[in-house]
Amino acid sequence: MNILHQLYRPSLALLTDLYQLTMAYGYWKHGLTERESVFHLFFRNNPFQGGYSIACGLQTVMEYLENFRFDSEDLTYLSSLNGADGKPLFDAGFIDYLGEMKFSCNLDAIPEGTVVYPHEPLVRVTGPMLQCQLLETPLLNIINFQTLIATKAARVCQAAAGDRVIEFGLRRAQGIDGALAASRAAFIGGCSGTSNVLAGKLFGMPVTGTHAHSWVMTFPSEREAFDLYAAAMPNNCVFLVDTYDTLAGVRNAVETARSLRAMGHEMLGIRLDSGDLAWLSIEARKILDESGFPAARIVASNDLDERLIVSLKQQGAKIDIWGVGTKLVTAFDQPALGGVYKLGAIRDEQGRWQYRIKLSEQTIKVSNPGILQVRRFRDATEHRGDMIFDQESQLDSAGGATMVDPADPNRRRDFTSETASSDLLVPIFRHGQKVYDPPNIEAIRQRVRNELDWTPVAVKRFDNPHLYPVGLEESLHQFKTSMIQSARQQ
Amino acid sequence: MNILHQLYRPSLALLTDLYQLTMAYGYWKHGLTERESVFHLFFRNNPFQGGYSIACGLQTVMEYLENFRFDSEDLTYLSSLNGADGKPLFDAGFIDYLGEMKFSCNLDAIPEGTVVYPHEPLVRVTGPMLQCQLLETPLLNIINFQTLIATKAARVCQAAAGDRVIEFGLRRAQGIDGALAASRAAFIGGCSGTSNVLAGKLFGMPVTGTHAHSWVMTFPSEREAFDLYAAAMPNNCVFLVDTYDTLAGVRNAVETARSLRAMGHEMLGIRLDSGDLAWLSIEARKILDESGFPAARIVASNDLDERLIVSLKQQGAKIDIWGVGTKLVTAFDQPALGGVYKLGAIRDEQGRWQYRIKLSEQTIKVSNPGILQVRRFRDATEHRGDMIFDQESQLDSAGGATMVDPADPNRRRDFTSETASSDLLVPIFRHGQKVYDPPNIEAIRQRVRNELDWTPVAVKRFDNPHLYPVGLEESLHQFKTSMIQSARQQ
Repeated sequence: MNILHQLYRPSLALLTDLYQLTMAYGYWKHGLTERESVFHLFFRNNPFQGGYSIACGLQTVMEYLENFRFDSEDLTYLSSLNGADGKPLFDAGFIDYLGEMKFSCNLDAIPEGTVVYPHEPLVRVTGPMLQCQLLETPLLNIINFQTLIATKAARVCQAAAGDRVIEFGLRRAQGIDGALAASRAAFIGGCSGTSNVLAGKLFGMPVTGTHAHSWVMTFPSEREAFDLYAAAMPNNCVFLVDTYDTLAGVRNAVETARSLRAMGHEMLGIRLDSGDLAWLSIEARKILDESGFPAARIVASNDLDERLIVSLKQQGAKIDIWGVGTKLVTAFDQPALGGVYKLGAIRDEQGRWQYRIKLSEQTIKVSNPGILQVRRFRDATEHRGDMIFDQESQLDSAGGATMVDPADPNRRRDFTSETASSDLLVPIFRHGQKVYDPPNIEAIRQRVRNELDWTPVAVKRFDNPHLYPVGLEESLHQFKTSMIQSARQQ
Repeated sequence: MNILHQLYRPSLALLTDLYQLTMAYGYWKHGLTERESVFHLFFRNNPFQGGYSIACGLQTVMEYLENFRFDSEDLTYLSSLNGADGKPLFDAGFIDYLGEMKFSCNLDAIPEGTVVYPHEPLVRVTGPMLQCQLLETPLLNIINFQTLIATKAARVCQAAAGDRVIEFGLRRAQGIDGALAASRAAFIGGCSGTSNVLAGKLFGMPVTGTHAHSWVMTFPSEREAFDLYAAAMPNNCVFLVDTYDTLAGVRNAVETARSLRAMGHEMLGIRLDSGDLAWLSIEARKILDESGFPAARIVASNDLDERLIVSLKQQGAKIDIWGVGTKLVTAFDQPALGGVYKLGAIRDEQGRWQYRIKLSEQTIKVSNPGILQVRRFRDATEHRGDMIFDQESQLDSAGGATMVDPADPNRRRDFTSETASSDLLVPIFRHGQKVYDPPNIEAIRQRVRNELDWTPVAVKRFDNPHLYPVGLEESLHQFKTSMIQSARQQ
């Protein structure tokens, strides 16, 4: 079941930056198309000034790669592109090469729903230079956005502290897939459902919804509108009470709920969509309780995010279910994750790996060379630290190792062999063939909860979170340092 | 050529909030499906604290409506949804009704590329209540995002003051369509091209790109990397010079450009992607000029937006072409436009229009009743003001009218009959049939430039822009006021 293929008609091979294709052309011209190389996808900062992130988007990447091929329309289009002299950008031979190309890379990745941190490779692509290069942009597009939204959703759900959170951001999302991908990632991050019906159908997640202000405005009175809604849909009654006067609306809902009860149905609850949600929810709760509807839930919405939810809870708001839209699906306070995709190594003509770094004036922004893997250490209750290491090096398989903080090489940490560990990146594709069976979306969502249980509390807090230790294995750090020094001496 | 249909496989009729369908079901249950109603799509604030917005997304809306039907998969999915009692949400009769439903609304809209302001209906949908309701969410999704990005692009291009701006945000965009729709809207807003190859193919806009850091890192030296790129693609050489040391990189580019010139080709330019762009561009310009490459362009990128471009220009940066990505395609400083879709009127059983408003504690947030149109007045050089009026009322067709500022009803403005005027909403669909031939994307882009020429300078400035006059026609204002007062007395 390839959801991306169900959704999109074209091949999506052109969903890339033109420079990936002009570079690919360069590799082809110079006989480097098949030269094995390794790229890592990682980000440098947790979003929202937070202490953690949630990896998301891998299944979409897998679906993208399962259908990664240029179709004849793509090739015709590429043939039509011209350079500054009006002549074709690409030779016909290159276009033929693309038409025959089959995805043949190895891909390793951290499974979706894993808590991840800056500098850790979320995805590692190993294979022919040309293919690795073309994949940079689509992989970044997919992983950056879904990781951003899953992280936002995890934070919102953390603020809701066990209450249900419903995502309904479709109308303000960034385009059609800005909504669909956000619904998926929000559910993985912890939301209980979405208002987006197509997302529900595509991803197999619960959809929810009752009525809007326009329903109330259609009829002569609010009470009549509630009665008519209840008559139509007695098993799905959440009355929106703020079209005219909120507390009068709650009383109207109660009257309708009484008639409903007389017919053997229960009102599910009411929804507040404006005004002072703290005060209104407390007053509405009183009315509902005093009227014999203690089980009726109060749903609240109106530009909510994790900070507002924390504040409302601190004020004693009686809100049971949180409807979160715009601020969640656009990750309003930081609408992009700055993930990058960097060359780690390339084989020379003799087949030996040549390690590569991208320099920067800031040492912390220099990419890590090698064929990288991440080892996560834990004790009986918590994750303790993550060590990035070169898979080609010989590490103590019992788990003992020294890790260096790249921001301050004087900070080192030893993990004793008693500490349990596991390596985060797992094989997803081998020679272009899928070797990983992705879990269903419920299982991924459950993984997030489990992972967050293992994450130190101080790392999860919103304000000045503790910096989770992520470092380089000592020999990798030494090697990188010498590479930087020799590159700067050139 | 329906681009949306070319791109998406499913019907997209389910791209809506579930509550639209549960309300639709209510209308169906109560025999209101065909009751004629009118809805308006508008926003309440210009994004980015700016003084204007650019309408965008109409063609995508048209494409959506041309294929607006529920297919059998959609209906099967809807049949599978259950309410709180485990029984189906929807009767089979309703599902059948949806399956047979044909889009039959009238739709009027302000053409894409028009400068628009808060409270003006960008789209007006008139037709069967049920259809109007279902369309709320997809229309908002499409118009909100494209209008947001076209506005952002217009601001970025305004800052660039005639320099070319290239959009390359695909890797950080919010999902696949978050990128594609953004590329379209950014081009309309004034960008010269995109890096997104699929957007270029779908929308027929120029694509640009040369090489990334990874190209440079692939080869033993930067100079070799430039030479090999030039050998492969002599008609498309923009060298990225900041992989190791930027000014050394410029000198390497010059050396390669000399060899290139000897073979009859000219380097197009260089690109700076990090560091102090003001200083580096000035130094790079000197090197290029002194080396005999005064025509070589300097492209700059690195988290640019309109404010940074203004600042760089003020610092005398020698940048010819601006590459703008993340900040543009995600509208980073305000990633959502808060457009809404409100019921303006509904016919009663006798076929008379009953006007409707949505109350709010803030009078400025109360929706406007009626079947609304916008009249724009202009003098010989500038737009002077926009008047929202009820199309059912008898206005002086010569254009004379009094307009009331809804934020301060004591502020009124008279437009004399000498002032020219035109009505902004034009017919797009009549009884479900398309009656508007959308201009091509280049024409829409040209419209933006023309519209901005007519927009007062003070309205266009970034800081504390002048508030462009938008008001209600006097009789509409009086009618609305009396509606609010009688609703509040109830």
